[in-house]
Amino acid sequence: MSRTRVHNLNVSLDGYAAGDHVSLDAPIGAAGKLFAGFDGRFIHGVGGVDGPVTLDRALTTLWGQGIGAEIMGRRKFGPQTGSWPDDGWRGWWGDETPFRTPVFVMTHHPRPPIEFADGTTFHFVDGSAHEVLGLAREVARGQDVRLGGGPTTIRQFLEADLVDVMHLVIAPITLGRGVPLWTGLDGVEERFTVESVVSPSGRTHQFWNRRT
Amino acid sequence: MSRTRVHNLNVSLDGYAAGDHVSLDAPIGAAGKLFAGFDGRFIHGVGGVDGPVTLDRALTTLWGQGIGAEIMGRRKFGPQTGSWPDDGWRGWWGDETPFRTPVFVMTHHPRPPIEFADGTTFHFVDGSAHEVLGLAREVARGQDVRLGGGPTTIRQFLEADLVDVMHLVIAPITLGRGVPLWTGLDGVEERFTVESVVSPSGRTHQFWNRRT
Repeated sequence: MSRTRVHNLNVSLDGYAAGDHVSLDAPIGAAGKLFAGFDGRFIHGVGGVDGPVTLDRALTTLWGQGIGAEIMGRRKFGPQTGSWPDDGWRGWWGDETPFRTPVFVMTHHPRPPIEFADGTTFHFVDGSAHEVLGLAREVARGQDVRLGGGPTTIRQFLEADLVDVMHLVIAPITLGRGVPLWTGLDGVEERFTVESVVSPSGRTHQFWNRRT
Repeated sequence: MSRTRVHNLNVSLDGYAAGDHVSLDAPIGAAGKLFAGFDGRFIHGVGGVDGPVTLDRALTTLWGQGIGAEIMGRRKFGPQTGSWPDDGWRGWWGDETPFRTPVFVMTHHPRPPIEFADGTTFHFVDGSAHEVLGLAREVARGQDVRLGGGPTTIRQFLEADLVDVMHLVIAPITLGRGVPLWTGLDGVEERFTVESVVSPSGRTHQFWNRRT
């Protein structure tokens, strides 16, 4: 049983899950306030992180639990478009990435993998959601596959009915523009059970579990 | 920074956190319904466990995060009282325990440690909360120490102001009898910030973080 899981997917009230105009200076575009409540120090657990354990932080820790591989869209890896320039780009994360597993970057421009000492290897693959999920499962050693975003990639997997668990965080903000999550997904909630809980921070956490 | 943490502490509306009359057949006494909503399969994370990811289950996974040792009361280890009988008792858990760390069992009757192949070693120690916490910290390798209960042990650590993080689950039930958690702790909440969130299951999760 290897599931496909989405975690800490922050969505604005008007349905945007990232900003447009991604650039080197603005990795998530003009949507910084979407992640204002997200404390990335907690993705590997509450242990060893200074600061109170809150609901928002507790739920952030689901991110890495039992994950054997990640799939991401190209824009999550870098700001480049088209053919890869020979610029030595190795992702947004510097010498140490948070992933520590194989990561499959979906791109129409395949290239050789990039390996890190921390256990992360980025593979650059062209293919459908089904095909790329197949590749990720092969190396996930029976563990779950995390679908890391961005919104366009997640939407693609939702369309193909390949998402098993999705942890959404509805932020009480409006963006007015950005990358929409829900376009073309009318009624997608019918394929899931949805549990909602309001955090004292004002965010709403939702657990979407695919009906079996 | 090694903290002392309490997780998944289920408490009834009338303040009981375990039943009385613990016996071989009733490890938590007559308080089974206190744990009716607790799914122990999730203590090591949501990965690899069949079943929907819900809020209650998500929060259960904090249990093992960054924990280097556990402290428990004698009654959590077994039903015996007084001098230890020569009965081969190795705890409630069979050949494989959930702990996988050193565990300090507080008892007025010290005895040699009991070791398991899974990484768990039970140490039987006599001493104050301060003293036993010191022993646990020594072997926790800088990680946090989990205070595993029961209620009497947790109350003792709260009295000594040694609890840094406490995850309470208020179950919407009354027990009428059992082991009380709050006796002698009037106003203990003033030493903490307390965040509450209501689960769709009807339980209230609380995060107590000691004020610094």
